[in-house]
Amino acid sequence: MDTRTGLPVVGMVGGGQLARMTHQAAIALGQSLRVLAAAPDDGAALVAADVQLGDHTDLDALLAFAKGCDVVTFDHEHVPTGHVRALATAGVTVYPGAGALRYAQDKRAMRERLGELEVPVPRWAPVAGVADIDAYPAVLKAVRGGYDGRGVHFVSTVDEARSIVDSGVPLIVEERVPLVRELAVQVARSPFGQVAVYPVVETVQRDGICVEVLAPAPGLPEERAIEAQRLAIRVATALDVVGVLAVELFETASGLVVNELAMRPHNSGHWTIEGARTSQFEQHLRAVLDYPLGETAPTAPAVAMANVLGGPDGGMSLDERLHHLFAADPGARVHLYGKQVRPGRKIGHVTVLGSSMDAVRARATRAARWLREGS
Amino acid sequence: MDTRTGLPVVGMVGGGQLARMTHQAAIALGQSLRVLAAAPDDGAALVAADVQLGDHTDLDALLAFAKGCDVVTFDHEHVPTGHVRALATAGVTVYPGAGALRYAQDKRAMRERLGELEVPVPRWAPVAGVADIDAYPAVLKAVRGGYDGRGVHFVSTVDEARSIVDSGVPLIVEERVPLVRELAVQVARSPFGQVAVYPVVETVQRDGICVEVLAPAPGLPEERAIEAQRLAIRVATALDVVGVLAVELFETASGLVVNELAMRPHNSGHWTIEGARTSQFEQHLRAVLDYPLGETAPTAPAVAMANVLGGPDGGMSLDERLHHLFAADPGARVHLYGKQVRPGRKIGHVTVLGSSMDAVRARATRAARWLREGS
Repeated sequence: MDTRTGLPVVGMVGGGQLARMTHQAAIALGQSLRVLAAAPDDGAALVAADVQLGDHTDLDALLAFAKGCDVVTFDHEHVPTGHVRALATAGVTVYPGAGALRYAQDKRAMRERLGELEVPVPRWAPVAGVADIDAYPAVLKAVRGGYDGRGVHFVSTVDEARSIVDSGVPLIVEERVPLVRELAVQVARSPFGQVAVYPVVETVQRDGICVEVLAPAPGLPEERAIEAQRLAIRVATALDVVGVLAVELFETASGLVVNELAMRPHNSGHWTIEGARTSQFEQHLRAVLDYPLGETAPTAPAVAMANVLGGPDGGMSLDERLHHLFAADPGARVHLYGKQVRPGRKIGHVTVLGSSMDAVRARATRAARWLREGS
Repeated sequence: MDTRTGLPVVGMVGGGQLARMTHQAAIALGQSLRVLAAAPDDGAALVAADVQLGDHTDLDALLAFAKGCDVVTFDHEHVPTGHVRALATAGVTVYPGAGALRYAQDKRAMRERLGELEVPVPRWAPVAGVADIDAYPAVLKAVRGGYDGRGVHFVSTVDEARSIVDSGVPLIVEERVPLVRELAVQVARSPFGQVAVYPVVETVQRDGICVEVLAPAPGLPEERAIEAQRLAIRVATALDVVGVLAVELFETASGLVVNELAMRPHNSGHWTIEGARTSQFEQHLRAVLDYPLGETAPTAPAVAMANVLGGPDGGMSLDERLHHLFAADPGARVHLYGKQVRPGRKIGHVTVLGSSMDAVRARATRAARWLREGS
């Protein structure tokens, strides 16, 4: 409790763009997000009033950070499960808890658990050696720590597989799912057990990185959308998730398959800032604080979000590119993360709302390109 | 320029809720608002990373604050005009400039200037003594420093008038305008001269304090709305305003009359956060930075904003009241300012969007009452 305002203090471990945007949402709720950042120029550390610097793998730093927080939550999955458990043992309210979070941290545990729940997942197996890979092409995934395409390897031959397996990183192998497209669905769940689910979106990936999100997923039959939402609710409830859960799905000719889980606000939900009545960031805060959850209804018939990736060095400054974009499209909603521009790095996103998906998608894509390249 | 991000630094003098919400908007633009706050528990000081404490009437504090800012702007009108001029002389980019700002600071200068521009204003006169008041009832207004009903006195007799005139505060006297209702319109203007005007809204006052804003103003004929917007554009241009200008108007049986001007984001524009494609806070930043301005189109057919005033002491905590409101209306958009609750003080606002003005108005009013009283 912040004695100056009488309102709760949420601590978020990690100072990236998710914490940055959660801080914006916290301000509206009368709060100020407390951030544990790795560096003073982390995106959230640049904008939040209440920042501590520390390593998220340092239990003492985590315990010190948690003092005075009503609840501690996460901007990423990289806090060791044992530390999350130790925080809880020390009396800290941590959401999502270690029991849930391990399924977002460990792909093998996640696949096993979802299998037990009879949630459809790709055919998979743990990998001790290349002999465990029984068909090619195959997908090798690091059990822990992968994101944005890192830790995911598409292999066509045993030699390719061996070079990865021999690195010693714990892996699972998966079939290469013959997918129609990728979908995602966000659901929030509170300690009370209330759930609120967002419309199902299509996520468009390039080189393993999400480049666009279309909300709602164009042409998705209502019964399949409901199936995806019910799947997300079932997973959130069965895993006892508190906070926002993002479920990434493959849509195949024969149905839906769960690909990944993230237990925090997620790139596939950035469109909710303007595109849904309650953003995923406010919803995450409401969930971890056990506030009643907010309305998830869309605010426009078609919403497109495009990620802004860092472009090549040289040329126009980001500020100049922003001028050009604003002149070209006064209705594009820009979110920049305060990051140093590096080629391929997500440095922001753009959202466009309207009535035609084709039109908003074209505008969002163009806006992201202008912010990357200046034209 | 912030060398960490390559993006500009805007400094805002004053740390109230307008700076607090401008900081939220700055975050999306990749920036972090620099705030000159009077106290560490000012609403914006609680949430911004880059806060200096200082008195807005202290020129040295203002000059020190301005160092490293690309532009300095204001959360209120209380910086002495001479100080604003001195900042500009010292090479600081200040928007709005002293030449414009004096008309928001000095009601007599504003009335004179608007008269020269043939903008309709209430019949008025400067007051040296009670002899200058030629009819009762009359409205006495402090030339400087009034807001939220303070500095405005409705007097019915010469004795009532004398007690105010004798206080020595410079005053003007105005006719009591036989108004149908009050309207307001926001316009943003950039140094380049671009203008962007928002839909005209109705503002509902109680005891001199704005309690509700309805966007767009219900039942306003299109030609009158256009007249109000053109009036706002004309005033912004003639006074060389840079930033957001709020024009408060009386609607009378015979037409529109300008009541007040504010050269900053304004309570009558809070509805734009969710209700317009670009919020007045982002628009103010874009204007003072000479970015092309954002789209002002509404995002819903009907938007109602209700201010949350501090209620009586005792009873439920604000946090408990928030729980109840969220349970009662999951679609209400809440903005709390991090202020100590004092009876009658604006501590936040609620916005509701929908298709029926009657419905959204009823919901916003109820939500504000719940946050004030808990039921």
